[in-house]
This record gives sequence, C-alpha cells and structure tokens, in this order.
Amino acid sequence: MKKTLKIVKVGGKLIEDENKLQAFLSDFSELEGLKILVHGGGNMATEIASKLGYETKMIDGRRITDANSLKVIIMTYAGLINKRIVAKLQALDVNSLGLCGADGRSIISKKREVKEIDYGYVGDIEVVNSDFISSILEQGVVPVFSAISCTREGELLNTNGDSVAAEIAKALSEKYNTELYYCFEKKGVLANSMDENSVIKTLDKKMYQDLLDQKAITDGMLPKLLNCFGALENGVKKIFLGDARVITENANATEIVK
Amino acid sequence: MKKTLKIVKVGGKLIEDENKLQAFLSDFSELEGLKILVHGGGNMATEIASKLGYETKMIDGRRITDANSLKVIIMTYAGLINKRIVAKLQALDVNSLGLCGADGRSIISKKREVKEIDYGYVGDIEVVNSDFISSILEQGVVPVFSAISCTREGELLNTNGDSVAAEIAKALSEKYNTELYYCFEKKGVLANSMDENSVIKTLDKKMYQDLLDQKAITDGMLPKLLNCFGALENGVKKIFLGDARVITENANATEIVK
Repeated sequence: MKKTLKIVKVGGKLIEDENKLQAFLSDFSELEGLKILVHGGGNMATEIASKLGYETKMIDGRRITDANSLKVIIMTYAGLINKRIVAKLQALDVNSLGLCGADGRSIISKKREVKEIDYGYVGDIEVVNSDFISSILEQGVVPVFSAISCTREGELLNTNGDSVAAEIAKALSEKYNTELYYCFEKKGVLANSMDENSVIKTLDKKMYQDLLDQKAITDGMLPKLLNCFGALENGVKKIFLGDARVITENANATEIVK
Repeated sequence: MKKTLKIVKVGGKLIEDENKLQAFLSDFSELEGLKILVHGGGNMATEIASKLGYETKMIDGRRITDANSLKVIIMTYAGLINKRIVAKLQALDVNSLGLCGADGRSIISKKREVKEIDYGYVGDIEVVNSDFISSILEQGVVPVFSAISCTREGELLNTNGDSVAAEIAKALSEKYNTELYYCFEKKGVLANSMDENSVIKTLDKKMYQDLLDQKAITDGMLPKLLNCFGALENGVKKIFLGDARVITENANATEIVK
C-alpha cells in the first residue's frame, strides 16, 4: 500500500510575519508521516529590491522578473527565507533540507515564451525529479522548497509557488498517496470575497465554473484553483485550501473535489 | 578499499569574477570520482550590505557578524552564490545540491564564546553529519556547501569556509580516502610574500614553524594552514593549496605534509 505524503504550500502574509510563521511551523512540525513544505516569498523580495535601488517592473498589474529581480528573488527566497525556515524546523526537531529547483535537478522548467508580455526570468515547470525527492523523504528528511526552478541549461527561474506545490504533488502521486494543502491568509475559498466567513466547504468543478461566471473568484485565487483541478486530475488524492490551521484542522477550510 | 573523496574549497577573487568562476567550475566538473565543493563569498556580502545601508563592523581588523551582516551573509552565500554555482554545475552536467549547515543537520556548530572580542553570529564547528553527506555522494550528487553552520537550537551562524572544508574532510575520512584542496588567488604558500613565484612545493610542520618565526606567513594564510595540519592529523590523506589549477595540476601548488 502506498504511504501518504502531504505537500504543504505556505505563502503570503504567513511568511512575512515572524510570529505567524513560527506558529505555522510549529503546527507543521507536528504533522505525522511524510511531508514536504513549499514556500513563497511574500513581500520581502520587493522590499529588498527597493532598498537595493532596483525598480520592480509591472505590466498590466503583473510583476516582471528582470535580471535584478531574479537576483533578489534568489537571495531572499532560496537564501534568507528558505534557510531560516530550515533552521527553525531543525529547532523544532524536524530534520529538513532546503532546496530550489536546481538542487538535485529537482524542478526542471522552461523559460516562459514571450507572447504579448515578456515576463522575463519566469519558468514553467516541465519535470519534477520524483526519484531524488523520494530518496530524501525516505531518509526521514523533510524537503523545503523555495519557488525557484532551473532550466536544463542551468538557468535559474522565478516560478509560481502554487504551481511548484501542485507539480510536486502530481509527480509524487505515482509513489505516494499525495495530499495538497494551500495555506494563506484566508480561511478558504470565499463565496463572497467581502465576507471572510463565507468559506465554501467543498468546491467541485461545476461550482468553480459558476463562481467564475459570477466573477466571484479573486485574481490570486484563479491560478491556485486551476492548479488544484489539474492536480486532482493527475493523481492527487486530497486538496485543501485555508489558513495556517488547514494542516491540523481540515474541517475549517475548503476541500477541492472533482 | 575506501573510495577517494576530493573536498575542494574555493574562495576569494575566484568567486567574485564571473569568468574565473566559470573556468574553475569547468575544471571542477572534470574531476573524476566523488567530490564536494565548499565556497566562500568574496566581497559580495560587503557590497550588498553597504547597498542595503548596513555598516560592516570591524574590531582590530576583524569583521564582526551582527544581525544585519548575518542576514546579508545568508542571502548572498546560501542564496545567490550557492544557487548560481549549483545551476552552473548542472549546466556542466554535474548533478549538484546546494547546502548550508542547517540542511540535513550537516554542519552543527556552537556560537563562539565572547572573550576579548564579541564576533557576533559566528560559529565554531562541533559535528559534521557524515552519514547524510555520504548518502548524497552515493547517489551521484555533488554537495556544494556555503560557509554557514547551524546550532543544535536552530541558529544560523557565519562560519569560516576553510574550517568548513577541513571539518568535512576530517569527518568523512572514516568512510573515504579524503583529499583537501584549497583554491585561492595565489599559486600556493609563498616563501616570500612579495614574490608570487616563490611557491613552496612541500610544506611540513617544521618548515611551517620556521616560516612563522620569520613572520613570513600572511594573516589570511595562518588559519588555513592551521586547518591543514589539524586535518592531516585527523585522517585526511592529501592536502594541496594553490590557484584554480590546483585541482587539475597538483604539481604547481603547495602540498602540506605532516
């Protein structure tokens, strides 16, 4: 029988606030069984870029990763945030290993093609090296991924953290029963974005389509949900979205079902 | 029979100059057998700290690692430099894995005690996790270490890169025939620090003592050589010091012998 593997993505304000991060990691440390953590970078990269005098370029409200942004993203995501999380987990007696996609060729991507917009150094994931990742897991070590991937030619690329988590969950579904948890600042997917307590308990594809038609789904949630349905169709067993407590109390969150 | 493991430390100007780094990594990629790379950070941390408005504190000509310096060191050493080296090695078809001492509890240290000088967040190595490191090596993956260690309590600490390399070599001597290579901007240990070509071919402890008495050994070389003799006395088989070519042509370098 396959073992269960939990893949937890944490992002946004949970990463930026030291106390919230500590509380989250403490919950994460108590999760039983095999687990992987994927983290975003919150606003730290933007703050450091601005201190270094690098302008953050936006086109149509979307961030462009130019050479300087990439440098800052590597420093903050794969450096500061990743290593601090690993050290905090060690302190919580969780033996962990910080990774970006270049490490062990764990996440190979392709630079996004330039169509209407040139997003710069941004990668779309092609292959997740599930053999390498499972070899780490089987040693009792918890992989902690920053959202950076690498091309076959050795180019580091900024990568959507939600996609990193979903692609890892999909790739590892062959070896494990994978469960995917998205932790962010909301209690789940909201039926009404103005009402924090309008959490949808169970969201299937039809309901998702209805919400899309009503324009009830906010911008940040769209790619997250697309990732979720893609993951469910590719072997991932369970998916939950919610705040930091989603990993310990699924009940207060949104479960995504087919 | 034990396999041979080469531990290569690269630092100083070899890290700062993109072309020199590329040439070095290309040589490193051609080294046969098991290998580990340890890198310093050159002046990049100082430059980034200054851009971020952090003052680099010095006491008696020695750098003090305060909280801001540590932050910058984690960003640049474990982030930017480490991940760029890993990505470049992947491009050279060397499957590598970037690590700091917190990752896999690979290098556990103790914060340096405050005596006359408080060096701040600086660690002295206590334990190298040779089981974890050899498990990576035996998968055909090359560990790439940044010079950062971690206490048992999960505190990241700035650590001397030469010591990191020496301690790894010592700890892995039980499992492998270890060879230690220090690559820097000189051709080796110089008999006369004003003459770049006065490289000493073979340096033993007695000669070292004579050079010390003559005050012929420069400041940066002192801890490096102390590390070398300590390593030889603790199982390391061969030690060479030289420029980037030391890993491919031992002949043009200094060999340290008992």
